[in-house]
Amino acid sequence: MKTRAAVAFQAGKPLEIVELDLEGPKAGEVLVEIKATGVCHTDEFTLSGADPEGLFPAILGHEGAGIVREVGAGVTTLKPGDHVIPLYTPECRQCPSCLSRKTNLCTAIRATQGQGVMPDGTSRFSYKGQKVHHYMGCSTFSNFTVLPEIALAKVNDQAPFDKICYIGCGVTTGVGAVLNTANVETGATAIVFGLGGIGLNVIQGLKMAGADMIIGVDINNDKKAWGERFGMTHFVNPTEVQGDLVAHLVNMTKRGADQIGGADYTFDCTGNVKVMRIALEACHRGWGQSIIIGVAGAGQEINTRPFQLVTGRVWKGTAFGGARGRTDVPKIVDWYMSGKIEIDPMITHTMPLEDINKAFDLMHEGKSIRSVILF
Amino acid sequence: MKTRAAVAFQAGKPLEIVELDLEGPKAGEVLVEIKATGVCHTDEFTLSGADPEGLFPAILGHEGAGIVREVGAGVTTLKPGDHVIPLYTPECRQCPSCLSRKTNLCTAIRATQGQGVMPDGTSRFSYKGQKVHHYMGCSTFSNFTVLPEIALAKVNDQAPFDKICYIGCGVTTGVGAVLNTANVETGATAIVFGLGGIGLNVIQGLKMAGADMIIGVDINNDKKAWGERFGMTHFVNPTEVQGDLVAHLVNMTKRGADQIGGADYTFDCTGNVKVMRIALEACHRGWGQSIIIGVAGAGQEINTRPFQLVTGRVWKGTAFGGARGRTDVPKIVDWYMSGKIEIDPMITHTMPLEDINKAFDLMHEGKSIRSVILF
Repeated sequence: MKTRAAVAFQAGKPLEIVELDLEGPKAGEVLVEIKATGVCHTDEFTLSGADPEGLFPAILGHEGAGIVREVGAGVTTLKPGDHVIPLYTPECRQCPSCLSRKTNLCTAIRATQGQGVMPDGTSRFSYKGQKVHHYMGCSTFSNFTVLPEIALAKVNDQAPFDKICYIGCGVTTGVGAVLNTANVETGATAIVFGLGGIGLNVIQGLKMAGADMIIGVDINNDKKAWGERFGMTHFVNPTEVQGDLVAHLVNMTKRGADQIGGADYTFDCTGNVKVMRIALEACHRGWGQSIIIGVAGAGQEINTRPFQLVTGRVWKGTAFGGARGRTDVPKIVDWYMSGKIEIDPMITHTMPLEDINKAFDLMHEGKSIRSVILF
Repeated sequence: MKTRAAVAFQAGKPLEIVELDLEGPKAGEVLVEIKATGVCHTDEFTLSGADPEGLFPAILGHEGAGIVREVGAGVTTLKPGDHVIPLYTPECRQCPSCLSRKTNLCTAIRATQGQGVMPDGTSRFSYKGQKVHHYMGCSTFSNFTVLPEIALAKVNDQAPFDKICYIGCGVTTGVGAVLNTANVETGATAIVFGLGGIGLNVIQGLKMAGADMIIGVDINNDKKAWGERFGMTHFVNPTEVQGDLVAHLVNMTKRGADQIGGADYTFDCTGNVKVMRIALEACHRGWGQSIIIGVAGAGQEINTRPFQLVTGRVWKGTAFGGARGRTDVPKIVDWYMSGKIEIDPMITHTMPLEDINKAFDLMHEGKSIRSVILF
């Protein structure tokens, strides 16, 4: 069949909208009609050429929502008409990682996914007879795409595609980091570094978990209102702090009998390794946990004195918010439908596929929280 | 009263055995007759002058055992005749840290302890009218010493002082890192870097916790027999490994269906920041935890790529094995008495106070696991 898609033919070049050839689903695979997709910083990271593992030509996009149109042989958990969210972190429920109960990082199809192909080693996409790579196992910048059954979460079919597509990455990453990775308890103090889309979702996760004090840190004062919109209780602009930022934050978090200070939980949503260190060191002695969400540039390293860890701080990270895609993503969709979390205000821009390069421009200019492409 | 003690008059100089003046216990304080004390690397670190917080003159020693001889006003939990282990990490059970249930790092007397004085800001020790500092709140290189009530664990009075003194630091640090900080589960795989006294105690903690695979790593082949003595199942000498040590260790830990490899838990007992990085990176993707026990040199830093944490590894540290002194130390003494843990083979040398400088020499020469001074 044919499908319309935005193709990344070359690093650093705009996407091109073309009609491609798409092979139907093989055994264990599913054909999905994408109805909406977000445009995420990770797509930009790969498109820019900064991603050392980036492959071209490829169909980017990993934050979609759509409808199952056809299933391959042996597919038992999905049928045509099901509403689904593609999962760049699949959930096979059979590999040692899924069975460990300790991680969401399913390894069933990791190798082929990294090579931009389906689990059988081939691509379903081609353009003028030439292979085009899949991306993060999703390729949601295509109107139709093929995914393994284990990489699709079946969700509430009343949920609007143009909002829940954001659950395919940003919402789950932020909310999940709080609920799955940090396991924040009611009454906690927390600091969120970087109030972009991920940071705002961390904030709404913290509010949901019942945190008492939610400090947002960003160098852009416009983010204050955004943070407060989702539950932030205090805002700090580091460029306006006199002296040491860590000391300032530690002071802010001194409460009641506890005059040591430091946050119970901190979250880096910047990808800046210097900020990651500040986030760790702003944790409370004895138990503070710092969770790295942001993706650092290739080759960059974090560092600190080991004394920070020996005195009880814990350094962690999270991928896809520690969420098991097929199990947890449908719950988050239900939370959105019941009003437990908000998404609508974060979708600042929508546009048709033809305008997808504008979504990247808006991101570069810092004008959007999230742009969504409507097919 | 008078007491005999080994005094550190100056950094880098041998200890001197002299008779000092000791004031009796004030309110909330306890006079203890030390019967035995271990000589630990931390004493050596301070004596050498490398410890930026070292104060002189001081009475070092923090790994003792003895008998309560007198209690000050208001002391309710101890009486003369009680057998006790001094605690450099006290347990007041009232400060925000003790009440957090999340850390053993009691902060009740932290400030004054760091200044080498009792909680009222004064020292009980003097020599020829000049103040001599307390050390780590313990000063067990003195035959008699004064401690706050909250810094003494009351223990089984049948237990031999010359063995249980080691529970005052090394045993609790190693065994506790496994049981309290890492919370190792039965069937786990673990790697221990550095098979000195702490490393051997980590190994016996792992054996107690039911770990399946306990890999010891040391550049000294003589340590192989020592590790095996306490439950080590595999030994690696990094100088004999072809190629990358992390890859070698990850390969060793591939088990059954899990062909990813990496340890569930790793422990750094070297204090070497390069080893700390290897220990983190030899952890299993998705859930491996690395615990820093060793104390790094002043100003040294650990580093790694944040990707290591984002893909699920956790970097932690531990002080005094995460043990609450008054609650957990008596249990460890009982474990020794019931044969659940061993101490005797690790006490490789004993000597009278007069020979204490020999204990430091044996440590420098790598000839002792632990030397114990008998009063």
